Amino acid sequence: MGKGRLEAFSDGVMAIIITIMVLELKVPHEAELHSLQPLIPVFISYLLSFIYLAIYWNNHHHMMHAVKHVNGKVLWANMHLLFWLSLIPIATAWMGENHFSRLPVILYGFILLMAGVAYYILSQTLIRIHSGNKELATAIGSDRKGKLSVVILVLAIILSFVHTWISMALYVLIAIMWFIPDRRIERKLENGQTLES
Amino acid sequence: MGKGRLEAFSDGVMAIIITIMVLELKVPHEAELHSLQPLIPVFISYLLSFIYLAIYWNNHHHMMHAVKHVNGKVLWANMHLLFWLSLIPIATAWMGENHFSRLPVILYGFILLMAGVAYYILSQTLIRIHSGNKELATAIGSDRKGKLSVVILVLAIILSFVHTWISMALYVLIAIMWFIPDRRIERKLENGQTLES
Amino acid sequence: MGKGRLEAFSDGVMAIIITIMVLELKVPHEAELHSLQPLIPVFISYLLSFIYLAIYWNNHHHMMHAVKHVNGKVLWANMHLLFWLSLIPIATAWMGENHFSRLPVILYGFILLMAGVAYYILSQTLIRIHSGNKELATAIGSDRKGKLSVVILVLAIILSFVHTWISMALYVLIAIMWFIPDRRIERKLENGQTLES
Amino acid sequence: MGKGRLEAFSDGVMAIIITIMVLELKVPHEAELHSLQPLIPVFISYLLSFIYLAIYWNNHHHMMHAVKHVNGKVLWANMHLLFWLSLIPIATAWMGENHFSRLPVILYGFILLMAGVAYYILSQTLIRIHSGNKELATAIGSDRKGKLSVVILVLAIILSFVHTWISMALYVLIAIMWFIPDRRIERKLENGQTLES
Repeated sequence: MGKGRLEAFSDGVMAIIITIMVLELKVPHEAELHSLQPLIPVFISYLLSFIYLAIYWNNHHHMMHAVKHVNGKVLWANMHLLFWLSLIPIATAWMGENHFSRLPVILYGFILLMAGVAYYILSQTLIRIHSGNKELATAIGSDRKGKLSVVILVLAIILSFVHTWISMALYVLIAIMWFIPDRRIERKLENGQTLES
Repeated sequence: MGKGRLEAFSDGVMAIIITIMVLELKVPHEAELHSLQPLIPVFISYLLSFIYLAIYWNNHHHMMHAVKHVNGKVLWANMHLLFWLSLIPIATAWMGENHFSRLPVILYGFILLMAGVAYYILSQTLIRIHSGNKELATAIGSDRKGKLSVVILVLAIILSFVHTWISMALYVLIAIMWFIPDRRIERKLENGQTLES
Repeated sequence: MGKGRLEAFSDGVMAIIITIMVLELKVPHEAELHSLQPLIPVFISYLLSFIYLAIYWNNHHHMMHAVKHVNGKVLWANMHLLFWLSLIPIATAWMGENHFSRLPVILYGFILLMAGVAYYILSQTLIRIHSGNKELATAIGSDRKGKLSVVILVLAIILSFVHTWISMALYVLIAIMWFIPDRRIERKLENGQTLES
Repeated sequence: MGKGRLEAFSDGVMAIIITIMVLELKVPHEAELHSLQPLIPVFISYLLSFIYLAIYWNNHHHMMHAVKHVNGKVLWANMHLLFWLSLIPIATAWMGENHFSRLPVILYGFILLMAGVAYYILSQTLIRIHSGNKELATAIGSDRKGKLSVVILVLAIILSFVHTWISMALYVLIAIMWFIPDRRIERKLENGQTLES
């Protein structure tokens, strides 16, 4: 089964998720500077979620690039990932509207955690049907970052009971962690070979 | 006429339908656990509809994969299917907001029923222009599941007058029915041949 | 310049337009049959606009299929068409909410008229850069239907001052007019040749 | 790394941004002519933003057409551009609702400015990995228009303190500036060669 439509559908869903989040940035009715103030936490939540979804799209893009074929299990594992990603906008809005109070911060972390688990299941499903495909194995690697993210997310949820800013700092840390090494691997790939479009 | 744009447009519409449903999960204004409680039935409805739309996308994907060409009748049969699918979000929201009371449950079943009929019309339209295409015939099969779903949906609508939970159980049953055999057929296909992307 | 991304972008915009219209079907808060009643005119408007957008997508699909290349003027002519189509959801909602009273019915007709004009400009722009392309000339034809639609729409707007139901009947007439001949041309094409995907 | 999915994802996001802006044109509840009046500034904002997004899509289309491959830095530079574009709908709505008062006009200019900067970063990132690609260098050129736009936008923000209509006039000027030369370059390209799809 070709992977083209799976990529197209996932692109569509991720593009919509990343864009409808902005609808939560409700337009203030006055044109004063102070009327923008309540939007600040909502905006910070939006920025963080935008980056997370960008990371997911980038990783999905890399992984599917190395994939040769898909099957029904992959379709469902992918749908499972999209389901958890689709809940990010509501968790983002709840967290932003309530100025990062405990419960929304925990829910946000929980949904990121489930998305991480779903991504892991998807990658394992793909590896199982591509035994012998070295490119895919390299693209996914030992998934140390994925496992580490899950551990940090669990920690973030627990430490929210100490202070929610610890959780927020850990969410930001994960984003940075994914942002930087991606570029490092990239540079290595570039030196090795230049892939034509 | 090529099938590429038909697939792209259908992917777009289905991706949007599956994602805008989440907009009905209205953000609660308080950050308390009990403020999430009214969201539970809405969330359950969302989950069920997400699975139904995932099933439709998977089936559409399978069927169109075996298709070689399309014509104007197919375009309209496909639009007809998308029309009924586009009504799922509103039926989902109504059902969730009213805690699965009778009328919304019936409307939900009715829209699923019409989508099922529309899918059947689409598959028959495709078969008619592909006489001699064995792959398509296999992909669609005798459509026993499709016919059975329609019967169960009619039953679910009638039995809602006894109790709406019977209807809901039947809706879940159909979802399970489609989820499992899909994977069984898949495994058979995998053993037979591995389709490259 | 390739036509691929133009088609993809247009598909995306048209898919979103056709789907966000359903957001105007606001969920009633009660689960009573009479609470669905105010939705009836909104639903009829939705159905009509869905069919119009389906016709536009089908025609766009047919026309672009015959096109070999595009240029900057085509990109802008296409954007112009998408602009008027993007206003259909708001005109639809206004017409539905106000039970087809005069002003919304006129505005709806005006936007359809402008979309028709925009489509005509797009087709002429395409013909100008494809001199000698017989397939495109056939796909567009003398555009008698397009010109007739514009005349009927102007008539519908004028006759709204007699009664808005005349306008509505004419809007439905145009939809039927496009729906039927499409299939006739199709059948002719089918007899002549079967285009592989 | 192929550029196909990058284009598809960007198309998706830009298609959604350009379309959800229309949701801010809230349907008036009465069917009177005067009830459309408050929509006029919102409509003008919508029209301006639609044209800006069309320009961005056109330029993105031209630039990516000349691109042969992308890397991780390009993915992030592209996401950065999409982020600022995603904020255009809210700035548009705020500006329209407040009848072009100073603060919203400044915010609108600021977001256009940041989008311009993000586009410049994207183009530079692409040039850096395509040393020796003359087609891309031509497509981007010395980016005089891009730099000029940034200067005019800074000016527009400063001059908003004199009068906001000066800023608005400058925003319109930039749109015209991009709209016209695009067609001039195009005509030159057309005379030289006809690119097949």
